[in-house]
Amino acid sequence: MAEIGGATRVYALLGDPIAQVRAPGLLNPVLARRGVDAVLVPVHVAPADLTQVVRGLQRAANLDGMLVTVPHKAAVLALADRASDRARLAGSANALRREPDGTWTADTFDGDGFVRGLAGAGHPPRGRRVCVVGAGGAGSAIAVALLDAGVAELRLADTDPGRLETLRRRLRVAYPGRVVAAARPRLGDADLAVNATPLGLRAGDPLPFAVADLPGDAVVADIIMTPAETALLAEARRRGLRAHPGEPMLAHQIESYLEFFGL
Amino acid sequence: MAEIGGATRVYALLGDPIAQVRAPGLLNPVLARRGVDAVLVPVHVAPADLTQVVRGLQRAANLDGMLVTVPHKAAVLALADRASDRARLAGSANALRREPDGTWTADTFDGDGFVRGLAGAGHPPRGRRVCVVGAGGAGSAIAVALLDAGVAELRLADTDPGRLETLRRRLRVAYPGRVVAAARPRLGDADLAVNATPLGLRAGDPLPFAVADLPGDAVVADIIMTPAETALLAEARRRGLRAHPGEPMLAHQIESYLEFFGL
Repeated sequence: MAEIGGATRVYALLGDPIAQVRAPGLLNPVLARRGVDAVLVPVHVAPADLTQVVRGLQRAANLDGMLVTVPHKAAVLALADRASDRARLAGSANALRREPDGTWTADTFDGDGFVRGLAGAGHPPRGRRVCVVGAGGAGSAIAVALLDAGVAELRLADTDPGRLETLRRRLRVAYPGRVVAAARPRLGDADLAVNATPLGLRAGDPLPFAVADLPGDAVVADIIMTPAETALLAEARRRGLRAHPGEPMLAHQIESYLEFFGL
Repeated sequence: MAEIGGATRVYALLGDPIAQVRAPGLLNPVLARRGVDAVLVPVHVAPADLTQVVRGLQRAANLDGMLVTVPHKAAVLALADRASDRARLAGSANALRREPDGTWTADTFDGDGFVRGLAGAGHPPRGRRVCVVGAGGAGSAIAVALLDAGVAELRLADTDPGRLETLRRRLRVAYPGRVVAAARPRLGDADLAVNATPLGLRAGDPLPFAVADLPGDAVVADIIMTPAETALLAEARRRGLRAHPGEPMLAHQIESYLEFFGL
């Protein structure tokens, strides 16, 4: 990658844990190839410290933007001055940009990146019955994008009833008749099941849902990128289902990030 | 330089202005050559925002240290939990390190780097009459190191009487009989005059002192690194005096930084 100098513009990627994030390794070489004097650095922030760290970074005059990953995608929305429609609908953001007047705009590219990655792998979601397990930041954004992409029915699942109900209400208004919600997803006749929980990031995590309950021709997708082959995807392959990994969701967002930040 | 990944440790260099700083360009290649997965990034912070930015960065769990330059070297001392003797004496710090218990330790390497750079260029200060113009962060640290290196007389000058008097008092206790202070330096019989003000960073700045008043065999030193040849140094050369640029002060600090941060 390129040299960092005093005039280099800085972007921060906020997450907890942080060591597994892939965006710096993907984005920095693109910036270097384009001759853009900017760098994306990982910033490890515990949930209790998110406000203080973001408020601090927002006062750094050469810091032009932030990317946001687990578990901060919902909380960071409150630290922006405005948000895109889809970010407000999802209740989730994964990118914050400093505007020329010093205010901050939030948007989310997770859902769009996920759907484009899915379609690129030969699994277009239009007309399908889809389970999204995990109504957190990424799950919410993915749910919105799947509904925009024309899924027949979106089944939201989350073990946190409050979070699930909040998202269900917002989505039912925007997409009437196509959203159901439950603590555990109805998998028996699903075409696609997506893990949008952090389960699988850490070795020994339980599986987020029961692969055995899915039909044999279903697609199992995971948004976790490290490890590339999660226990969930390994189990899906073992049972002969099609497995869709987390990498394409990020790879399809890189262009969107660059455009959002004007790089 | 090396790739930045999720596990990369982060160091921030705080200053205002920031575009001229040289430390990232010097330090990052050394880290890469040593195989250390860490990166130093510039962080542009206005004085009014220093506390908020530093408090935010201190909560970032993968940020292990900060370097500090103009105009924050004095103010940052209050944001550390403890400081070295020389930093307390100078009232100035240019490096902050996170300890294993999460507290922060401040130290200053400006003075040591300056004196070693001066000696390395054939101008050892022992026994000399030295003027230090500018009693801010860098000037204070350089004054302490020059006194430790055995200068016969240290003449401090600053246009801010309060700042000058504060430093003069601290130094007179520690180095009795060797420190004088005035708004304008007595140059007529000086062996060495050091610009430790920011004058020269910006095109069109006035000269920090009158080179014509110095003896013909004096050394004129500048701590400003960008431009490498400041108007002050150009004027000194034009008059046949020896000119000592800012670069060696930083170059001689790189090893000290690496040792301080345990890299």
